[in-house]
Amino acid sequence: MSTTTTLRSLNINNINPHVKEAKYAVRGELAVRSEEYRAALANGPTDKLPFDKVISANIGNPQQLDQKPITFFRQVLSLVEYPPLLEKEDVLLNQLGYKSDVIARAKWLLKTVGSVGAYSASAGAPGIKDSVAKFIERRDGHSADPKDIYLSAGASSGVNTLLHVICATPKTGVLVPIPQYPLYTASLSVLDSKCVPYYLDESKDWGTDLEAVKGAYEKAVAEGIDVRAIVIINPGNPTGASLSEDDVKTIIDFAAEKKLVIMADEVYQTNVFVGKFHSFKGVLRNMQKADSEKYKNVELASLHSISKGMVGECGHRGGYFELCGFDPEVQEQIYKFVSISLCAPVIGQCLVEMMVNPPNEGEPSYELYKKEYDGIFAGLQTRATALYDAFQKMEGVECGKPQGSMYLFPTITLSDKAVEAAKKEGRKPDEFYAFRLLDATGVCVVAGSGFGQKENTLHFRTTFLAPGTEWVGRITKFHSEFMDEFR
Amino acid sequence: MSTTTTLRSLNINNINPHVKEAKYAVRGELAVRSEEYRAALANGPTDKLPFDKVISANIGNPQQLDQKPITFFRQVLSLVEYPPLLEKEDVLLNQLGYKSDVIARAKWLLKTVGSVGAYSASAGAPGIKDSVAKFIERRDGHSADPKDIYLSAGASSGVNTLLHVICATPKTGVLVPIPQYPLYTASLSVLDSKCVPYYLDESKDWGTDLEAVKGAYEKAVAEGIDVRAIVIINPGNPTGASLSEDDVKTIIDFAAEKKLVIMADEVYQTNVFVGKFHSFKGVLRNMQKADSEKYKNVELASLHSISKGMVGECGHRGGYFELCGFDPEVQEQIYKFVSISLCAPVIGQCLVEMMVNPPNEGEPSYELYKKEYDGIFAGLQTRATALYDAFQKMEGVECGKPQGSMYLFPTITLSDKAVEAAKKEGRKPDEFYAFRLLDATGVCVVAGSGFGQKENTLHFRTTFLAPGTEWVGRITKFHSEFMDEFR
Repeated sequence: MSTTTTLRSLNINNINPHVKEAKYAVRGELAVRSEEYRAALANGPTDKLPFDKVISANIGNPQQLDQKPITFFRQVLSLVEYPPLLEKEDVLLNQLGYKSDVIARAKWLLKTVGSVGAYSASAGAPGIKDSVAKFIERRDGHSADPKDIYLSAGASSGVNTLLHVICATPKTGVLVPIPQYPLYTASLSVLDSKCVPYYLDESKDWGTDLEAVKGAYEKAVAEGIDVRAIVIINPGNPTGASLSEDDVKTIIDFAAEKKLVIMADEVYQTNVFVGKFHSFKGVLRNMQKADSEKYKNVELASLHSISKGMVGECGHRGGYFELCGFDPEVQEQIYKFVSISLCAPVIGQCLVEMMVNPPNEGEPSYELYKKEYDGIFAGLQTRATALYDAFQKMEGVECGKPQGSMYLFPTITLSDKAVEAAKKEGRKPDEFYAFRLLDATGVCVVAGSGFGQKENTLHFRTTFLAPGTEWVGRITKFHSEFMDEFR
Repeated sequence: MSTTTTLRSLNINNINPHVKEAKYAVRGELAVRSEEYRAALANGPTDKLPFDKVISANIGNPQQLDQKPITFFRQVLSLVEYPPLLEKEDVLLNQLGYKSDVIARAKWLLKTVGSVGAYSASAGAPGIKDSVAKFIERRDGHSADPKDIYLSAGASSGVNTLLHVICATPKTGVLVPIPQYPLYTASLSVLDSKCVPYYLDESKDWGTDLEAVKGAYEKAVAEGIDVRAIVIINPGNPTGASLSEDDVKTIIDFAAEKKLVIMADEVYQTNVFVGKFHSFKGVLRNMQKADSEKYKNVELASLHSISKGMVGECGHRGGYFELCGFDPEVQEQIYKFVSISLCAPVIGQCLVEMMVNPPNEGEPSYELYKKEYDGIFAGLQTRATALYDAFQKMEGVECGKPQGSMYLFPTITLSDKAVEAAKKEGRKPDEFYAFRLLDATGVCVVAGSGFGQKENTLHFRTTFLAPGTEWVGRITKFHSEFMDEFR
């Protein structure tokens, strides 16, 4: 390659160094290898691989595995995609099992967006933003203004927008929990700003510890970093931990004191098994009610998505963020920035609308919706527990009880011999473990180093989305053999 | 605002200055005002406005106006959104007018993507990338490799990816045609790299003039700019001009000599009224056949979209780019970058597949597809001609014959008095004209300054997507009154 590289405009040494620095292990080398295995198995088992199926436990991608879409959502989408079906109401109702509220919703959405093939307004179709505002009002008991809501192509795109505006210089810092979903560190790398890591407390079920946040903040400031925002993932990814109301208050207090934008990544707000979800917006508004002067200018951006929860519509790329307390001139710049990419996918916007405004009790589609929704929730909990039980029995593996989100993030303790073997391959020990697991079982997880972890600790993240327990058995068997090999 | 600004983390003076610098007039202040007018007219005409309808001629958004989606595409989408419909084939065929090839395509797409609600592979579903490669092979008569194809959320997202990788430092320069679609200048601002403008030649139907490109390149290099890429929009936006095969060759030659990445924005490749579309990929491969040594490492990224052409599915956010001649290590970085945003909307990916692989002659849906496709094409041409004819009759307006894309970009000559009046309002003269046009008629166009234009020239861009001629009459009447007012 060295001879031709010189003839090209672009080579690995002269492209954007910040893109090069970005790390995104969730879809990195391991994931690429797993896709190669999947392709090799497309026409049935092969002698070359000791498994007959790849289990993608690396990505929270429910519908790739077992999760079925919610019928109401998809029936409505079929109609907005092909509106002439609405001229055949009797066929829809009597032969295809559509309910009248499906038809009504499709008509309403079409009235709101025109055609789903047309660009919407840059920040989303106004009628859909109204629905989101009403949802937030119901959820929090405080008003929400549609003009502060921006529909996005999943939460990732919202994070990208917000960080683009916040990251002013290479000295700009953003507090990010560790472990974290690596979108944050990757985006900060691309934007050439500083990730200011604060460690979550594994000994307290991955809780958010104010002292850790303060320590990280002060260290960064002492190093000359201009810390401007704090990211909170609640419920946590990869940890699943939910913040208590007091924890949320503590963070808002800290942000108010230090004048930090709060970026509340709340995409797992319905994936909660233990405790209760407390939205930052709701808690903030309560605090403002009690002390308006102190909290009036707290800047909060809270993000939500159709990709997670019982919706699980990742492929449709939908989500929103709501801004509170932002300077109107800054908000104008955010509007301009999102307008450069024109608009979020309109079908994804329609799904956002249905997520925040599902069938109500008493409406024709309610019963089925409720059954499907509850079934998915119960299924996730059952699988999480089965996986947790298996981890309990594995040597050198420690894992907290499943709390929420779609992940477990166990600690693994590997022998020096295993660490040495990893070094020989030029890999981190947990990466080495994850590659060996994939090669032996077809199960793809993500090494803890992909999310960040305290020094001298090792983890991996696995989703609990795959059906059945057979694949869990494969992990258990592999683990025991791995431990023996490197004992 | 000044008192509260100090209490916030973010204000207009401390956010990312490169976001602030970005300009994107297509959805700027004028567009925002037009949306306010539209909202004011939502419940019928009002005394406050001298028109009863807003015509959004500022954005190439076909389905917002009159263009109907292609039936085949949308029937297939209705099925992939709600696959249980496939269990009722007899109803689909006998009562809903679906053809057997619609059903077959939906089944194939579902087999390829699994669920449209699942994330696909980062660069797109493999089966869909295969279809795109086959389309490129048919179009150009040269092979295409699916691994070099990246499905994207519209061409905008592809441009964003490519510029992110190319723009290494504030000294990195990219040659951009002027006038241009402002995505390019806006993205270069955000990335803090340099736009190196080269002017298209209005006197030659907005042709691309090698001397102008060379001059711009040399001036930039003399100023210490590291020019790394050249953007070509073919057919042109906002100009509609199509490059001849010789023009394409000339640019490839220049790029090969100066080692520039060619970014060929070919989203209007089917919107061609005059001449013929010559793809950069096809011409490059011919040149490589003739002189492999000289051209083997020419780096080309060619972009396409479902938003334009007779497809017009903007709201679904679909597109792709194909890379030729890129260093494999650079391509790895591009892959990583796109993986951070997970994947393009899967429904948009399905539309890409159908755009590149529509019903074939002899297949059940072909006749209707052909009729719809040809009807849209003819309609665009008729409207373009009507608008062109109107411009011919307007004082001080000069406009080349419609050549393609979805736009006309007439020159306007305004009196000194009008220029003076604009200055008083703090606006550029063409902006002033566009605001007055909107206020008087409800027709929203984009001032030429939003795309760039030679000094001392004024233009505006209008789409020719709106139905009927009544709105054209409104423009003519306004123009004549405006000219009289400022005579």
